[in-house]
Amino acid sequence: MTKTNNDEKLIDKKITRRQMLKITGAGAAGIAIGATGMGGVLKAFGKDFLQEDDTTATNKVNFYGKHQSGIATAVQTNIYFASLNVLVKSKKELQELFQMWTPLAVQMMNGNMIGEYKNDMIPPKDTGEAKGLDARNLSITFGVGPSLFEKKELGLASLKPKELKDLPHFPKDQLEDAYTGGDICIQACADDPQVAFHAVRNLIRAASGKVSMRWSQSGFNSFPTKNGKKQTPRNLFAFKDGTENPNTSDEKDMNKVVWVQSGDSKPWMTGGTYLIVRRIQTHLETWDRTSLKEQENTFGRHRDSGAPIGKKNEFDAVEIERKDENGNYIVPETSHVFLAKQAKARIMRRSFSYSSGIVDATGTYDAGLVFISFQKNPEQFIKIQNSLGRLDKLNEYITHRGSGVFACFPGIKKGSYIGEALFNTL
Amino acid sequence: MTKTNNDEKLIDKKITRRQMLKITGAGAAGIAIGATGMGGVLKAFGKDFLQEDDTTATNKVNFYGKHQSGIATAVQTNIYFASLNVLVKSKKELQELFQMWTPLAVQMMNGNMIGEYKNDMIPPKDTGEAKGLDARNLSITFGVGPSLFEKKELGLASLKPKELKDLPHFPKDQLEDAYTGGDICIQACADDPQVAFHAVRNLIRAASGKVSMRWSQSGFNSFPTKNGKKQTPRNLFAFKDGTENPNTSDEKDMNKVVWVQSGDSKPWMTGGTYLIVRRIQTHLETWDRTSLKEQENTFGRHRDSGAPIGKKNEFDAVEIERKDENGNYIVPETSHVFLAKQAKARIMRRSFSYSSGIVDATGTYDAGLVFISFQKNPEQFIKIQNSLGRLDKLNEYITHRGSGVFACFPGIKKGSYIGEALFNTL
Repeated sequence: MTKTNNDEKLIDKKITRRQMLKITGAGAAGIAIGATGMGGVLKAFGKDFLQEDDTTATNKVNFYGKHQSGIATAVQTNIYFASLNVLVKSKKELQELFQMWTPLAVQMMNGNMIGEYKNDMIPPKDTGEAKGLDARNLSITFGVGPSLFEKKELGLASLKPKELKDLPHFPKDQLEDAYTGGDICIQACADDPQVAFHAVRNLIRAASGKVSMRWSQSGFNSFPTKNGKKQTPRNLFAFKDGTENPNTSDEKDMNKVVWVQSGDSKPWMTGGTYLIVRRIQTHLETWDRTSLKEQENTFGRHRDSGAPIGKKNEFDAVEIERKDENGNYIVPETSHVFLAKQAKARIMRRSFSYSSGIVDATGTYDAGLVFISFQKNPEQFIKIQNSLGRLDKLNEYITHRGSGVFACFPGIKKGSYIGEALFNTL
Repeated sequence: MTKTNNDEKLIDKKITRRQMLKITGAGAAGIAIGATGMGGVLKAFGKDFLQEDDTTATNKVNFYGKHQSGIATAVQTNIYFASLNVLVKSKKELQELFQMWTPLAVQMMNGNMIGEYKNDMIPPKDTGEAKGLDARNLSITFGVGPSLFEKKELGLASLKPKELKDLPHFPKDQLEDAYTGGDICIQACADDPQVAFHAVRNLIRAASGKVSMRWSQSGFNSFPTKNGKKQTPRNLFAFKDGTENPNTSDEKDMNKVVWVQSGDSKPWMTGGTYLIVRRIQTHLETWDRTSLKEQENTFGRHRDSGAPIGKKNEFDAVEIERKDENGNYIVPETSHVFLAKQAKARIMRRSFSYSSGIVDATGTYDAGLVFISFQKNPEQFIKIQNSLGRLDKLNEYITHRGSGVFACFPGIKKGSYIGEALFNTL
């Protein structure tokens, strides 16, 4: 369902008994948003404010499910990633924050505004810039960083998974505070930059005084199509990015690589995953002075086809042990793919490019990769990164400038709220 | 025509006599790109490298015509705007720069790469990240700033139009050097961020040592659609932006507002226009705390419909002289629309939003408007800006951080090159 183009002033609409039950099903979450009772909920949000996925909406990703959206969801064209500082001082307030966010996320993922208005003497509930756009496959993914569990006043220390900790320093890291860390992350992805930004803006606004923005980064993907089917997008180095990902429809494989299984971690993380974000500057000027052969030897793939060196097709297996008749590795030993593969660890990459502005007076592009990966344990990423280490030929062309690691909650059941398992654990 | 997905290594293809003539028609421009003769041109670029608009290409904007593309062209979803410093030391070198850029712009607007490669021991001619994407309605607009004419070694002083000068200081301007001025601008717009960026990157790269980047800014527009037709996009204040523009298909009106007419300026500008760019930060946090009524009084329009205050529909005429029964203006006298209209000057706006990152440690959004307008004389913009002056209610919510004014050449005829009229003037 697209947003109506009619006058926004609320027309109280008749609500069926069934819809009423759906709304009241939200319980505390619905009422938390400034409404003082049942009538308030209805008046504030109108009939569109149902506490469930709108199956009639177009370009719609479901909010509710076994896992959060934005992980196994087909990667969209745009991201607005926000890392937040938490300002609340108790576990209860933090719980209420996620309860309050739940119906807003449902609404926005349904392609609706988060509130209509009948009183123009107050600020509109919804900032409005996504009005008239449909859901555009919006997904919203929530995670919590290690620093959240270190805030004594929140009393979460005993619930911190041991694998949730700041990443170790990797060779050539030049992390900047301005793009590192965070208590909470919101990853909003959509097939539209304004819809993604709108989602983050409205969630943060609704949490005014409870969170502040620590850093944010937008990004994009451009998909070539073939017979109407999206192909693997190219990064700004012109190489295809994400080829080696697990097949998101293969549940067994996703359970192996991405989803935390019962017993793997703290119980509240079962069905969740760990998000790692790295803001990686790409030195395009240097790259562009490099021969094609060197570029291909750097990635270990052919630029045009995306095939591993010595193979023909993008999805041909990377067989790093293969040698030529002289006994030399066909995929160079210092290539990104060789070293990553050698780690014998897998992750699910879900990255975006960024490019706007220049870094400094020398006119260097402020451009690069919002690298995002999901894995059931950050150790998977760490293993790969350690294998790349100082050897990775790609190091010459990139600098890691930002970093974050976040525990993403499992999926949300209807009637529940984001992160419930964390708050319900004694 | 989309880029081929075949192996990029050049397969020399048979070229018809007609195609040959088209290629040789490029004359100096084609040959300037490192090729040493006719054979070189063919070998370097293959059969796709025709010196004209490819009428079979999909999502294609024409390069050649009476006016440059990207002005009357239907506004796209993405922009990458670059302001450049010129490093060359003679008029001839500057002329060669624009000659060299011409066929590259033609190629990219045809949705092609700017060169195939058969030798992988050298850097590929094309940076490659747009491979597999079609033209995506790419437009490329070239302009020259006042500072270009002040470079004595270029000998252009006598050709400077008197109206091409830095804009005066406006109340509340807080311009930053990092986003102001420039000798040349390249405005690349496309329905894809990677295609727009690719165009600028390849033009700058091909001009290595001849130009450097002074500043750049990317932006986006999100179009609601109605019955499959694009509607006016909303800015990040949620108001529709660009409603009052002249109808680009009304040549008479465009000649009145946008296109420099014979006798208006220096002869080389006939058919051209002036581009004004302003990087305007929007203080979203302040805006979001403002009542709907105040927001609407600030713009002088209704947020939802886009109609002028007191009217119903977006395209209803703004009649600022209308008063209510008490003799008060219906559209508030301090509203943006009232003051802009009062200037009795018109411009063609073609703006984009931006949002990524935060401005400082307080967590304020780095978001706003890449305001771009075209007018036959910068005075039109200046009149409006002076009328807004200190009165404009919108001043509370915005800060102008960057600025540029550029003389955009007239359109390019087949066989000619960008800016020829400037260089052919004695």
